[in-house]
Amino acid sequence: MTDALDLNCDLGEGFGAWTMGDDDALLDLVSSANVACGFHAGDPTIMRTVCERAGARGVTVGAHVGYQDLAGFGRRPIGISAAELTDHVLYQLAALDGIARSTGTQVRYVKPHGALYNAIVRDADQAGAVVDAVRSYDPRLTILGLPGSEVLRIASVHGVPTAAEAFGDRAYHADGRLVSRQRPGSVVTDPDEVAERCLRLATTGEVVSIEGDPVKVRARSLCIHGDTPGAVELVRRVREVLTAHGVAIAAFA
Amino acid sequence: MTDALDLNCDLGEGFGAWTMGDDDALLDLVSSANVACGFHAGDPTIMRTVCERAGARGVTVGAHVGYQDLAGFGRRPIGISAAELTDHVLYQLAALDGIARSTGTQVRYVKPHGALYNAIVRDADQAGAVVDAVRSYDPRLTILGLPGSEVLRIASVHGVPTAAEAFGDRAYHADGRLVSRQRPGSVVTDPDEVAERCLRLATTGEVVSIEGDPVKVRARSLCIHGDTPGAVELVRRVREVLTAHGVAIAAFA
Amino acid sequence: MTDALDLNCDLGEGFGAWTMGDDDALLDLVSSANVACGFHAGDPTIMRTVCERAGARGVTVGAHVGYQDLAGFGRRPIGISAAELTDHVLYQLAALDGIARSTGTQVRYVKPHGALYNAIVRDADQAGAVVDAVRSYDPRLTILGLPGSEVLRIASVHGVPTAAEAFGDRAYHADGRLVSRQRPGSVVTDPDEVAERCLRLATTGEVVSIEGDPVKVRARSLCIHGDTPGAVELVRRVREVLTAHGVAIAAFA
Amino acid sequence: MTDALDLNCDLGEGFGAWTMGDDDALLDLVSSANVACGFHAGDPTIMRTVCERAGARGVTVGAHVGYQDLAGFGRRPIGISAAELTDHVLYQLAALDGIARSTGTQVRYVKPHGALYNAIVRDADQAGAVVDAVRSYDPRLTILGLPGSEVLRIASVHGVPTAAEAFGDRAYHADGRLVSRQRPGSVVTDPDEVAERCLRLATTGEVVSIEGDPVKVRARSLCIHGDTPGAVELVRRVREVLTAHGVAIAAFA
Repeated sequence: MTDALDLNCDLGEGFGAWTMGDDDALLDLVSSANVACGFHAGDPTIMRTVCERAGARGVTVGAHVGYQDLAGFGRRPIGISAAELTDHVLYQLAALDGIARSTGTQVRYVKPHGALYNAIVRDADQAGAVVDAVRSYDPRLTILGLPGSEVLRIASVHGVPTAAEAFGDRAYHADGRLVSRQRPGSVVTDPDEVAERCLRLATTGEVVSIEGDPVKVRARSLCIHGDTPGAVELVRRVREVLTAHGVAIAAFA
Repeated sequence: MTDALDLNCDLGEGFGAWTMGDDDALLDLVSSANVACGFHAGDPTIMRTVCERAGARGVTVGAHVGYQDLAGFGRRPIGISAAELTDHVLYQLAALDGIARSTGTQVRYVKPHGALYNAIVRDADQAGAVVDAVRSYDPRLTILGLPGSEVLRIASVHGVPTAAEAFGDRAYHADGRLVSRQRPGSVVTDPDEVAERCLRLATTGEVVSIEGDPVKVRARSLCIHGDTPGAVELVRRVREVLTAHGVAIAAFA
Repeated sequence: MTDALDLNCDLGEGFGAWTMGDDDALLDLVSSANVACGFHAGDPTIMRTVCERAGARGVTVGAHVGYQDLAGFGRRPIGISAAELTDHVLYQLAALDGIARSTGTQVRYVKPHGALYNAIVRDADQAGAVVDAVRSYDPRLTILGLPGSEVLRIASVHGVPTAAEAFGDRAYHADGRLVSRQRPGSVVTDPDEVAERCLRLATTGEVVSIEGDPVKVRARSLCIHGDTPGAVELVRRVREVLTAHGVAIAAFA
Repeated sequence: MTDALDLNCDLGEGFGAWTMGDDDALLDLVSSANVACGFHAGDPTIMRTVCERAGARGVTVGAHVGYQDLAGFGRRPIGISAAELTDHVLYQLAALDGIARSTGTQVRYVKPHGALYNAIVRDADQAGAVVDAVRSYDPRLTILGLPGSEVLRIASVHGVPTAAEAFGDRAYHADGRLVSRQRPGSVVTDPDEVAERCLRLATTGEVVSIEGDPVKVRARSLCIHGDTPGAVELVRRVREVLTAHGVAIAAFA
């Protein structure tokens, strides 16, 4: 049984005149905010606004770094070299930290976004590039990622702190992999069912896989997607059920 | 008579596959490098490369912040609000400093670029926005700008260090204003004439205006444009003549 | 008394993963769709989707051309030269028309967007640049704009068809100018009041100005802003009231 | 022995303040200009300038369509769906054709660029997407590509005209594949050697492969890369040698 879990959401994913998700409502519920840094979403003013509000609520700020691809929202694989990727991650991380510090808080962790998040589960070159950027900026920052991923393995090798996350609203295979979004049943949308899965994760370290067997998912943080309709209610329900069962919501970093 | 002058050039103004100017040759000649930060020119990898090479040669790195306008190279006025401008300057400054520090150096001054540089000569709102960004990031950074400009005045009011620059290759009016680029004779291209003007500036604090009268131009730094054909020869000649006459080339920051 | 009025809305103003307004609902109500062309909003796939649906419903497609400024949604003045502006308008217009034709419809008019729309009310250079682009692409296309604007005047001089539009949800001064959005009461949000104003425009060619006097507004088209909350209800109400009083909703082009 | 060959070069690959290659000099030498369309390079004003000059010299204009990736110059694989790719190609093609027609010429062929060019050699989905865009715009346009590529095969199936090209400055394997740029000897830079290879191609339809054996390369067009140092001299030499041996330089479209 876990005493405390972190709840993280992607925030600040608007751009200019466009909005995405309800940043304000979610900032009342999460313990960690993955703040977009302008490459796949976000702009300097949105970044400042989210940092100000996160700081005011005691929510921890993380750099949600992504591929430089506004048109694709960072969800498309891009064939960037590892050396360039390090520079891109460092640029985003430093920019957000500068803005966060101007609002009285600071970046405490890094969570890659979208296609980059997926790439560094298996691609050691790209994973190493992300770790290099974090190390060169501040090796005390935590990297948040998928349990068993290359990026967390390489970070550990270099002494960079890591945190593993589980997805409360995503179905798992019995071997621990996420079920592809193409497949029916891959995303759980019923708030009670999501909350129940999160509670089971907190108390047993397991979820029921799509095949029916339980699967171990060791995670210090729970990610709920903030851009889906009903996301606010979902996160609120997860928070209520966890705290009602004695699991505190607390940032890992 | 001045013992020492700074020589500054705009560097790192390529983008992706495109190059501009001869960064490497100029880094052997200048004492301060105004490094583009990705908004009007530059990208994370170019920024890192210039910072590495500047650091290796003992050249001081400054943040050459501009409007977010790659298509216009930051030379077009853009109607951005002061509040947003502060966020944009802070974003660029922090990103470059993060990259500079990863290479073992750091940003020591801020010089706005192009249309922003021109705007903050007279526009107190935009000038104040730039000063706010610098203050919130690190109030010990120097702002480099035109003598008598709003941005230097406001910086001084807030205790932010300032440095004034003169343009060795631009003609001045008798009242100290630069001659418009639209007008013939506004840019001096002959290396010997530029060097002669720079030497006079160093020794007397004056240039001969386009009207023929001398004009006082108090400047701690000389700017030579690095993207014009022959720029490298021009800067080399200025450096030779100044040092031959006992004026050391030394960064102000 | 007018037999028929056009209802136009800005559509296709999403970008990548971001949406704006309810294109589908509005396409059931309007007679003309101002389709963003990718410079201030819109992308090739959104453009195709809106064109397909507009064509299927018999809605006329117009090119909603704007400044190249996704970050500012085309609402910021940008200091672009007239010659470049002609190229930018032509590029957008041709791109949309190519996509529209691939879906079985075509572009029939051009309506500039945002800061460009405002600029060409008075700026003859920029207005002429827009007219030049339309003439060089297809001089039979209509330009939709503000009554009395430079762009409509210059278009007429060159034999390019024009259409004037009124804003059903914006307050007017007694001299025919729009009340600035900074001022309270500049935007009318009550559906019944907007519908009443539109009906009066259709039957008398007048609106009541913010000063209380009636003001003549000769317009062949009514523009309702599609990106405000409640826009769909507003447009639906306007349509109902006009048609109930014998004013048909019909495209001008 | 071929009576005539086309010489094609990538042109208009500047962007804003950045230039690439010597468009003017190359337009005096080539018969076909692959004009960038703003997605990987080029902007509306550069596009117009190249079209004007191509038209004035009787050079045929082709749409050099690419991935939407200025930062990567269209050289990075991007995971875009086939449906979106069709929209992107159609958008670029229509935009360039609109500009070309305003200058008195028109687009007569389409040649994909960089990573897209490489993708559609083998990827039938992406190749089909390109063909769909061309068919929906104007099925009489020619698609220029690699002999044996998927894109030429699919175009032929749909009755879209095709032209195959050879690379005068690239080494071939004995099986007809290009030698990877990573490998030494992959690019031939000596003007005389390139001209000799081009002449052999024209007279025998063969080149000597890197393995030493001759390889058949049936091509109606020769591509010389315009962005390499010495490109102008290379193209000039190829043109001289071919015409001296009775092979006319003439556009295929």
